[in-house]
Amino acid sequence: MAKELKNLTKRSENYSKWYNDLVSKADLAEQAEVRGCMTIKPYGYSIWEKIQRELDNRFKETGVQNAYFPLLIPKNFFGREAEHVEGFAKECAVVTHYRLKVDEETQDIIVDPAAKLEEEYIIRPTSETIIWNTYKNWIHSYRDLPVLCNQWCNVMRWEMRTRLFLRTAEFLWQEGHTAHATREEAEERAKMMLKVYADFVQDVMAIPVIQGVKSETERFAGALDTYTIEAMMQDGKALQSGTSHFLGQNFGKAFDVQFVDQNNELQYAWATSWGVSTRLMGALIMTHSDDNGLVLPPALAPLQVVIVPIYKSSDDLASIREVVDPLLTELKQLGITAKFDDDDKKRPGFKFADYEVKGIPVRLVLGAKDIANHTVEVMRRDTLEKETLPLEGIVGHIRSLLEDIQKNCYEKARIFRDSHIYECNDYNEFKQRIVNGGFFICPWDGTAETEAKIKEDTQATIRCIPFDVSQDNPGIDMVSGKPARYKALIAKAY
Amino acid sequence: MAKELKNLTKRSENYSKWYNDLVSKADLAEQAEVRGCMTIKPYGYSIWEKIQRELDNRFKETGVQNAYFPLLIPKNFFGREAEHVEGFAKECAVVTHYRLKVDEETQDIIVDPAAKLEEEYIIRPTSETIIWNTYKNWIHSYRDLPVLCNQWCNVMRWEMRTRLFLRTAEFLWQEGHTAHATREEAEERAKMMLKVYADFVQDVMAIPVIQGVKSETERFAGALDTYTIEAMMQDGKALQSGTSHFLGQNFGKAFDVQFVDQNNELQYAWATSWGVSTRLMGALIMTHSDDNGLVLPPALAPLQVVIVPIYKSSDDLASIREVVDPLLTELKQLGITAKFDDDDKKRPGFKFADYEVKGIPVRLVLGAKDIANHTVEVMRRDTLEKETLPLEGIVGHIRSLLEDIQKNCYEKARIFRDSHIYECNDYNEFKQRIVNGGFFICPWDGTAETEAKIKEDTQATIRCIPFDVSQDNPGIDMVSGKPARYKALIAKAY
Repeated sequence: MAKELKNLTKRSENYSKWYNDLVSKADLAEQAEVRGCMTIKPYGYSIWEKIQRELDNRFKETGVQNAYFPLLIPKNFFGREAEHVEGFAKECAVVTHYRLKVDEETQDIIVDPAAKLEEEYIIRPTSETIIWNTYKNWIHSYRDLPVLCNQWCNVMRWEMRTRLFLRTAEFLWQEGHTAHATREEAEERAKMMLKVYADFVQDVMAIPVIQGVKSETERFAGALDTYTIEAMMQDGKALQSGTSHFLGQNFGKAFDVQFVDQNNELQYAWATSWGVSTRLMGALIMTHSDDNGLVLPPALAPLQVVIVPIYKSSDDLASIREVVDPLLTELKQLGITAKFDDDDKKRPGFKFADYEVKGIPVRLVLGAKDIANHTVEVMRRDTLEKETLPLEGIVGHIRSLLEDIQKNCYEKARIFRDSHIYECNDYNEFKQRIVNGGFFICPWDGTAETEAKIKEDTQATIRCIPFDVSQDNPGIDMVSGKPARYKALIAKAY
Repeated sequence: MAKELKNLTKRSENYSKWYNDLVSKADLAEQAEVRGCMTIKPYGYSIWEKIQRELDNRFKETGVQNAYFPLLIPKNFFGREAEHVEGFAKECAVVTHYRLKVDEETQDIIVDPAAKLEEEYIIRPTSETIIWNTYKNWIHSYRDLPVLCNQWCNVMRWEMRTRLFLRTAEFLWQEGHTAHATREEAEERAKMMLKVYADFVQDVMAIPVIQGVKSETERFAGALDTYTIEAMMQDGKALQSGTSHFLGQNFGKAFDVQFVDQNNELQYAWATSWGVSTRLMGALIMTHSDDNGLVLPPALAPLQVVIVPIYKSSDDLASIREVVDPLLTELKQLGITAKFDDDDKKRPGFKFADYEVKGIPVRLVLGAKDIANHTVEVMRRDTLEKETLPLEGIVGHIRSLLEDIQKNCYEKARIFRDSHIYECNDYNEFKQRIVNGGFFICPWDGTAETEAKIKEDTQATIRCIPFDVSQDNPGIDMVSGKPARYKALIAKAY
């Protein structure tokens, strides 16, 4: 896949252009020839697969099972839940016909007007409606509960302004949908899944997040509560990285999902839903990467170690290979993915640049001099530090280096974020400072009016009421001057 | 998920109804409230996940990488490849609008007529067109080749008559699409992937298959050659279980995918595509299962061993658990998935029937008497044989029992198939015998006319020219009386 490996735009010059450059040059994804849709390229997809595999294991540990529900949703389903229709029956892809034919006059391929559907279908923007319509047939007694399903699938929302991974018309995600006998159990599940997301994003993706609950305005359409994890990107903007919704009995009632409880009484089932998407790829890029390209935390890197030989003759290469072969075996035994890149169609300089822009955590270089001296050059991608080390004991060194890179990615991001979180009680000060990004913890009176004014004045939004910020004495709302109900996290967001 | 566990329809009574009963009662899938679409239920999906995981590993071993291409295909793409348009631009889901709105008069949700797309999109029935349109930007030099991509995704074909897993409007599959510098390499890849399918289906799914090449009539639209694996179902009908296509330069030319070769000359890239789908679930069911329900080869069973306790008091249960706990640990260490089902909301009789209809390969039952005697009752699902064995050495016994069941599933299916393959040179005899199913090896003159006549007279089709049937002296065509070109495999098919 031919491409030029010239420098990326610098982040300080144009953060947005840097992001687009990186997505392209690291072979992660590209714009498709379908409005607002993307092609996820093999390297980008291999990172998504690691995200999927790891999350999937964590879901299953909590008893969740995967299933698959239809892509198309009958139009009338959206009308059943009053708030849901407001949120989702808008910009979406509508299937109206089921046949093409060749026009007899022009010989063009046209939509066959005779093949018009009686009722249109919508390509799922999210699947609460069709899944709860299905649960109606699955749930009759408390013995059938809980139902804990998840699906990995594609969804479509006809977004007007799109950006690769961050906002695309079609995207990949998982959506979990659970049904419970009691309110308490459903609320507990919604919070449990938020914790699964937070732990995964922090431990594997090395992205620190703030957990909290959304304001009413920012809630999922049809939810009683939306929980969120919010991450800070390098430009100080927030990226909502995962949400978990407590849906109450809204969908149970809308789709008539009733069960007989232990006292032989009919009850509506309680619901949650929760999802993360290929948006996480955007969070990954904008948390760790630098002007040289992607930086990957080792736990998420499809390839953790690359070994590049520098040689003139085939004899040189043979003696390098002799050293490398047992190294590869040892690394594999430790569960470390490594590759010896002896492709002679590419120069070492090209390889260095390519692996750098792709964020391979550790690069080893071996030349004739190294073989003579029993040494190897080791570079870590996160700091770009190079050192020449003895070959003896190198595998143990690589293992601890990978652990160190993982920790360093997280710590660097955490320190950056923590140094850009501000307490602020003065609206004028807030308006001045929010221009430069950052997270602001501010007293809020809890009204939608105040929330709307902040958004109108500054484009910043209430990201959440953070769980770990004391809500005891929230003070005075900085906009309305009324007593505050909460300390809210406010930021500009992707 | 409440259901009645009364008996299935017997296969001898109504094979088709038995199949539907089984899919329902084993909790594999159900009809969705979307025309021709299915919901794959958690148990069914867990088997599909095993199929995916195992195939995915085998693809990757051959150098294939996963990627993701858009769901929607611009209508004009279908017109580019002459034969492809004939095959696929027919019954398909057409997206014509991108917005819903609330009708001001009726308050109904309607399609916004203002939001009509300039060009319609088709939900992918297969992705050759959009992928080759993308490859155009990826392939410039022989250095960029081969490109070996696969995607796991959903596709839609607006089928009129649908059956769960076998033929549904939406289904899940994988589609591999490779690009090569030479004809030879592409042909080799198409054959290689057929072998990957054949090995997987035989070794893991325990389904014997016949490999061969399709007739021109039965080829994939746009292919120069279509290779196939054909399996025999218990009713003697064929089920095409996987296909691999050598596409020549058809898509390279249609989408202008040219590269500079080693002699600095421009060439069109050579293509293959290959796929298997959730149809394999149908093949699985109709190869191994019996009147009691699903029979699963252990290599594909999400749960291989279930242990059911029979107890009166909680003391009984505790002493059973004491025996079971170390057993579970040992099984896990051997990579055997096992579950101790001590759910006291369900009676043992219900559990036995449920695990039987779901095809769990090995069932252990432990009661008070077993604890006293240090014994356990072992049942194998494939033969339904029960025996009481000493607990000592039971884990080793289970391991070899699972291997034995895997072999037995395959052998039973192979013997059935082999005893229903007939050589036949007489058309009258063929017409009489084909009514009862079976595979017929017949001399064929290679013409589409003969092929069409056989289909018209008997509904049977030429499934393939088998690789392992000698084509040296094919004899005289049984229909036309002309010299035969091939010995073809003819059968009725799903």
